[in-house]
Parts: sequence; C-alpha cells; structure tokens
Amino acid sequence: MTGKVNEFELIGRAFRRRMRFIHGLTRLGNGDDASIHAIPEHHELAISTDISVSGRHWPHDFPLQDAARRSVNAALSDLAAMGATPAWMWLGVMAKSEDDADQMGRGVAMALQSLEMELAGGDTVRASVDALSITVAGLLPQGSGMRRDAARSGEDVWLCGSAGLAAYGLQQWRQGAHGGRYVSAFRDVVPLLQEGARLRELGVECCIDVSDGLLADAGHIADASATALHLRLQDVPGFSELGRELGEDEASRYVLGGGEDYALLFTASSGFRQALQPFSKRIGECRTGKGVHVTLRGQAVTCAHKGYDHFA
Amino acid sequence: MTGKVNEFELIGRAFRRRMRFIHGLTRLGNGDDASIHAIPEHHELAISTDISVSGRHWPHDFPLQDAARRSVNAALSDLAAMGATPAWMWLGVMAKSEDDADQMGRGVAMALQSLEMELAGGDTVRASVDALSITVAGLLPQGSGMRRDAARSGEDVWLCGSAGLAAYGLQQWRQGAHGGRYVSAFRDVVPLLQEGARLRELGVECCIDVSDGLLADAGHIADASATALHLRLQDVPGFSELGRELGEDEASRYVLGGGEDYALLFTASSGFRQALQPFSKRIGECRTGKGVHVTLRGQAVTCAHKGYDHFA
Repeated sequence: MTGKVNEFELIGRAFRRRMRFIHGLTRLGNGDDASIHAIPEHHELAISTDISVSGRHWPHDFPLQDAARRSVNAALSDLAAMGATPAWMWLGVMAKSEDDADQMGRGVAMALQSLEMELAGGDTVRASVDALSITVAGLLPQGSGMRRDAARSGEDVWLCGSAGLAAYGLQQWRQGAHGGRYVSAFRDVVPLLQEGARLRELGVECCIDVSDGLLADAGHIADASATALHLRLQDVPGFSELGRELGEDEASRYVLGGGEDYALLFTASSGFRQALQPFSKRIGECRTGKGVHVTLRGQAVTCAHKGYDHFA
Repeated sequence: MTGKVNEFELIGRAFRRRMRFIHGLTRLGNGDDASIHAIPEHHELAISTDISVSGRHWPHDFPLQDAARRSVNAALSDLAAMGATPAWMWLGVMAKSEDDADQMGRGVAMALQSLEMELAGGDTVRASVDALSITVAGLLPQGSGMRRDAARSGEDVWLCGSAGLAAYGLQQWRQGAHGGRYVSAFRDVVPLLQEGARLRELGVECCIDVSDGLLADAGHIADASATALHLRLQDVPGFSELGRELGEDEASRYVLGGGEDYALLFTASSGFRQALQPFSKRIGECRTGKGVHVTLRGQAVTCAHKGYDHFA
C-alpha cells in the first residue's frame, strides 16, 4: 500500500531474465519511471491495451503459461490488424503467487521469442486473481495504418485465417479434451503480423482482427464504414470442416459467433484479387446499405449469435 | 470468452462520454484495434504502465471514484518524474459491476479534467476484483528525459513536495478517519507535472518520483547512479509536521518508509540552487560511495523501513 519494492525483483526474475531483446529505437529501457522511445521520421506509433483475466479469457484449469502466451499473441493481433511492426510491450501482471507470476513470465517470453519486440516496462502486484494487462506498440509508415472505417461499397470482403475453430476448441477443453486440432486452435493463437504488414504494403485500407466473432467484427466494419457487408458462409475458412464435424447449424454458430481465432477480416477492391488469393479467402462483398448479411449457398442465414458479452 | 462486444458500449458510456479531449497528434483515436499517433520531429515518447488493485493500492472501503482518480494521478507522476508532457492514456478496467466501472470512470475523468490528455484506448472486463491498468504516454524533447541513473557525486539532493503525509493519512483512514489534512494527502495525489517539466527545462538530469518511500527511491537513484545519497531528515518537508503530531521516531518511519506522496526526488549541481529554491527543498547531497545514509541533526538514523512489498 505504501510502495512496491519487490515488484522490481520479481519482474526482473520472472520476466526480464527471459526477455533480453532491446529495440534499436529505445532511448531508456525497463527499470526507470517510464521508458523512452524515438520514433523514426515519417512513421507513426500504433498502441493497444488488452486485459486478460483467468476465468474469463481462459478457463481456470488452463495452464497459465499457455494462457499468458495466448494473451500476448491476442494483443499482438491488434497490431497485425493495423499492419504495424511490433516494437515494444508494457506488461501489467496481477498474480495470486510468485509461481503464477513465473508461469505467466514463461508464457510471455515464449510469445515474444521470435519477435524483435522489447519488454519496455511493467508492474507486478499480488492479487486475488491472475490477470495480464498487455500494452503493445508498433511502428507504421505515416498514414498507412489499416482501420475499420475504410470499407467502400463494391469492395470484396476477405478473410486471412479461419473462423470458429478456437471457439469450438474452447468448448472441447471445457468438456475435458486437452489436446487435438481445435484445442490447439484456441491455445496456439498465431497473430498474423506478416500478413497484416503485407496487406498494408499492398495498399489495403480497411482491416480488423476477428476477436469478437466474425459477425460482430464484420458489424464493426459495417458500422464504422457506413456500408453493408454480405458474407457467404460456405466460403468462410473453417465452416466446411466444422460442418463435417458438427453439422452446418452448429458450425455456423461457431463460425459466426465464436471469436478469438484472430483471423484478419478486410476489404479490398477487385484489383487486389490476384495479390490476395495466395494467402486469403474472398468471403463476400460490401454493398450500399448497412449491417451484416449472411447467406449459405444463396439462402439467408439468421444471425442470432452476436458474440460474447463480458458483462452478460 | 469468445469476443467482447459490450465492453465497447461500457467504455463508451462510462469513460468516453466524460473524456472528449482529442490530442492534435492523434491520427486514429479510441475505437479501432489500436490508436495511432504522430510524434513530432526531435521529440521522444515516454511510456509507463501501472496496475492499481482494490485492497492493495487503496483500502476496500475507499470510494472507488477517489481510488481511480488517485491511481491516474499516481500514473501521471511517472511522467512528471521524466519531465514529460502528458499526451495519451490507455485504460484497462477490471470491474466487479457496471456501477463500479462507472465510478472508476468518474474518477479517471476527474483526474484528466485539467489536462490536455486523450483517452486513446481501453479494454473493460468484469472480474472478481476492481482494478485499473493505466498506461500513460508523454512527449519529451529529444534526449531531455530525466532518469534515475544520472546522479553525480557532489550534487545536491532535492525534494519537490513532501514525504510521509500520505502514508500517515492511509493509516488514519484505516483507523476510521475519513477526512482531514493527512487523509487528503493520500486521497488527493497531485502529480507534479509542471514542476517536472520545469526541472527538465532547467537541465536537471536525475529525477525519480517517491512512490516506494523516500528511502527506497533514494536507494533506486543511488544504485542506478553508483553513488551514495546522504539525506538530512530534519530538512525533509513533512518531517517537522509529522514529528509534532507523532513524535520524531514515528515521524521518521512515515517519512522514510511511507511512499505514495509522489514528490519528486532529484539531484542537481550547486549552480542550480537559486533556480530550484522557490519550489523545492534541498535535503542532502550525493557523495562517492553507495547506498542511502540518513542523519537527524547530525546523528545517524537507522533505516529499517524499506517500503511496502506487494508480495510480502
């Protein structure tokens, strides 16, 4: 309540030991009241904060190391959606014990392992719940960041990655399955950083990551861009596979309502098709109007699955 | 677990409604996957993350609005210590209920009321505990940020603000006093932003904010700068007053060990004295050696109070 001495030792032990990368633009790193960073000329900084809490963002019986790794990758997905290059992370750790903090440290380190991203600061506190607050910052060439309000009528709608697999994997975990393709889709989130950067380089302007569910995130684009998104369910990666596993009704529930696959949903004019097809799937188009409209082989699909509400 | 739709509504309602300031360097504000910011030429960005948790950073019976206001001001104090000009904040909110989130929103808004600081992003989640993760960013002219590793033997040690009053106020609160000068010192933290900027402009290079306790934070400077800090307890603002109230033994415990007054502790060569005296108090000097050495009217003071340990 009056100071916080040991947090430095703890962060030092559990986190800094494993994360030694120093970004070339850092002027003052971890360990002072704040970190200081230079931003290159003609560049901008994209920043996002996510909170992940045990029991809400992962099941209580989920390994903490995997949960922390997943939480960092989910946070990085926000940078992927902007097309930004990850540079720095600031970490807030709430832990029930030093051992829990240590496990989360391992997971965070695993997520950063192959990235040139620096742990630039952090704060650790003992609490009655395990949780991570993850702030990530990435660099963008001036004016090039992708956003959700840039979709235009006539553009194609694309998905890079698949939808629904992670939500089904989470359901499987809750029913006792602790391995397999779907559990892995939930556990081993891959932030599509290179794909996001590629989209930005190509000139794509409108992109979002699918964290709330395909329907909800398509709705975010539709609302922000004041356009309608028409999606063809049979073309959405993940739908056929889940359909064979679960039947099409149940599959559509996971594909449209289940978030947390961290695919990139974006729009682009038809001139982009050749460049995009190698790593993305065209799943619909933007039209004048509003809202999200889903069909399955030409038949309208009723959309009752609006995604998960933390306060429900 | 699979998406987070309503958090947008909630942040919108409880936070954005009250915080409308948009910073001139923001290129994309709150509401997308990340916010985007331009940094002016010849400037750098200082960033810090703090976590504040009910029951650890404020008593469970403390009004949430005051707790949130205090938490934001404490986070801003990190920018003050660097000499940075506040620009953006990203907020992670863990709340037991919408009402708790709303109260925290009021407190955050009050803290930002008189600042040109933008709420650039946030994440809200229901949890079993009320907590805030506060990331603040401020601008600094290139290379001018104050740091804890820049103290040099021969320099004076200064304090801007006082020490010990907040810790005594917290103690009073716990004993049932819910008003008065000391409780107010704990509740109404004032981040010394203008003073920090003034120190930076004057050319002060070494500064820290007193959040862990005067002794612990002086120790951070001593360790980082590889110098010894010698402090004269009788000169520390707050000591005489608390001494009259509590006796000198008890007063020294609060002044040296009690953190959270958010005074600025800094060092400067003797040429600065005239400029610093109007708003700071000279409390000691840096000498060759290591550690922190405290005297009271020439007598050595034993320092057993190392500040609060979150994991104790």
